[in-house]
Amino acid sequence: MIIFERLVILGVGLMGGSLALAAKKAGVVGTVVGWSRKEATLQTALANGVIDIAEADLATALKGADCVVVATPTILAETIMIQALDLLPATVAVTDVASVKGNIADALTAHFGTVPANAILGHPIAGSEQSGVSAAKDDLYQHHRVILINDSLAEPQTDAELLTKVSQLWQAVGAEVFEMSVAEHDHVLALTSHLPHLLAYALVAQLSNHNESVNVFNFAAGGLRDFTRIASSDPRMWREILLANKTQLSSSIDDFEQWLAQLRVMLDSNDGDALEMVFNDVKHSRDNFVAELAARTKK
Amino acid sequence: MIIFERLVILGVGLMGGSLALAAKKAGVVGTVVGWSRKEATLQTALANGVIDIAEADLATALKGADCVVVATPTILAETIMIQALDLLPATVAVTDVASVKGNIADALTAHFGTVPANAILGHPIAGSEQSGVSAAKDDLYQHHRVILINDSLAEPQTDAELLTKVSQLWQAVGAEVFEMSVAEHDHVLALTSHLPHLLAYALVAQLSNHNESVNVFNFAAGGLRDFTRIASSDPRMWREILLANKTQLSSSIDDFEQWLAQLRVMLDSNDGDALEMVFNDVKHSRDNFVAELAARTKK
Repeated sequence: MIIFERLVILGVGLMGGSLALAAKKAGVVGTVVGWSRKEATLQTALANGVIDIAEADLATALKGADCVVVATPTILAETIMIQALDLLPATVAVTDVASVKGNIADALTAHFGTVPANAILGHPIAGSEQSGVSAAKDDLYQHHRVILINDSLAEPQTDAELLTKVSQLWQAVGAEVFEMSVAEHDHVLALTSHLPHLLAYALVAQLSNHNESVNVFNFAAGGLRDFTRIASSDPRMWREILLANKTQLSSSIDDFEQWLAQLRVMLDSNDGDALEMVFNDVKHSRDNFVAELAARTKK
Repeated sequence: MIIFERLVILGVGLMGGSLALAAKKAGVVGTVVGWSRKEATLQTALANGVIDIAEADLATALKGADCVVVATPTILAETIMIQALDLLPATVAVTDVASVKGNIADALTAHFGTVPANAILGHPIAGSEQSGVSAAKDDLYQHHRVILINDSLAEPQTDAELLTKVSQLWQAVGAEVFEMSVAEHDHVLALTSHLPHLLAYALVAQLSNHNESVNVFNFAAGGLRDFTRIASSDPRMWREILLANKTQLSSSIDDFEQWLAQLRVMLDSNDGDALEMVFNDVKHSRDNFVAELAARTKK
């Protein structure tokens, strides 16, 4: 069953390319048009069967679209989304895959006076160590979660029909869709992703700037390796994501510092029982999370 | 070549049991005597060939020893070490495997007025998700690092001959030995292990006590799973370790907070270039650490 006759991917990298491949495999799109600033990307995307038509001109690429997916790097997403919404009628869904939603909602509001009803802001919680269209694969979103923004208090409300169709597209490629407001999304992602990245960056910076004779990394093992894995993420991408969500991130840093201060009080006062109670609760929560994650991704 | 004729393991769990198995396999010990507070542990240790002789009485176990390894939980290590040193002549090496050295050095100093020269404080940086004598294995220390305390400023200095023999024992079971002062050891371990544990505990506590309708863990994936792996460690053991090293840990929390504050200033002032420079340095350090760790553990 075709959900969108003409799906246009703006920015054919890992995320956009994988969505195109998966949607074609699922048989839910007619023609897939790809647009990129880089000619080589478009040629690879065509050669690998990721897209059917390559267009180097944005306005031409958008012609006849019934769904547009903005899948550029975070820093470009605002601009490209505004351009697409400007060029298209309100009957066309314009969605995106960027990691932060508040900056995009703010940019749309600054330009249009509101978030247009056909702007279906989205965020698939999936990724890979790799990037670029060559890394695109048709199962990237299988068993992953996608958050779509649906704020019942927004004015105008998100177009219900377009929201449903974008949701169906994600479900067709194997994802589970959840709806949230912009603020809820950015708060949840600040806690589960952006704050942990910042903590890992801060710790590695501290350890590697440790100005004593000993290289402390020589005495670290698998625990530190796993704790700091996210600190090996792409520096440019994470600069953009953290800046885009700096308001929510700042508030989650405040909360984190309070938790750290609480644990420190327990340490300073030798309150081993209180520490152990927290550690037990934490182990319980974390073990549950890991079991749920394993069940979610292996089904 | 026999290094120790009669090796006595006090606390036959994962750490002590694995050292016994490995030393026997390497042919560097004569007889291995095991002592434990639990009769069942001793029976398992005997049945599994971890020890040759089981002794439930500490004084009897120590008779004729030329090397004693205190491998009890951290909280008991101080007391057992003092008892062993009290019962033995200064020609016998009394070493340990506890994760923190300052609390033990302090306890010895409080009791003996100094750290006795035959107290060879040690810390093998190795472990496992499992614990107990049943989990003991003869290759636990292969390609791992062991820190032995040798403080040239200490009075009296560590017995050079006993230190060499304990070092040879660790090398015989496949470990690489480094020497440090007590303060250096506890500082390095605070940074590479104890602080990361505390940060992971604080973050999971924050996320699981998040009092909103959304369970934020539902939107987390592999990045958070790896970041928080150390928060699933044994709560009792980590309560003891963190309290034992609370002075060094507290100072490393101070430093961490300064690094976090610096990154926050960059965020607040939209200084993307400064953030990216830190993230690049961090990625470089962390990638080097991981490559070095892989080379170290796979050789």
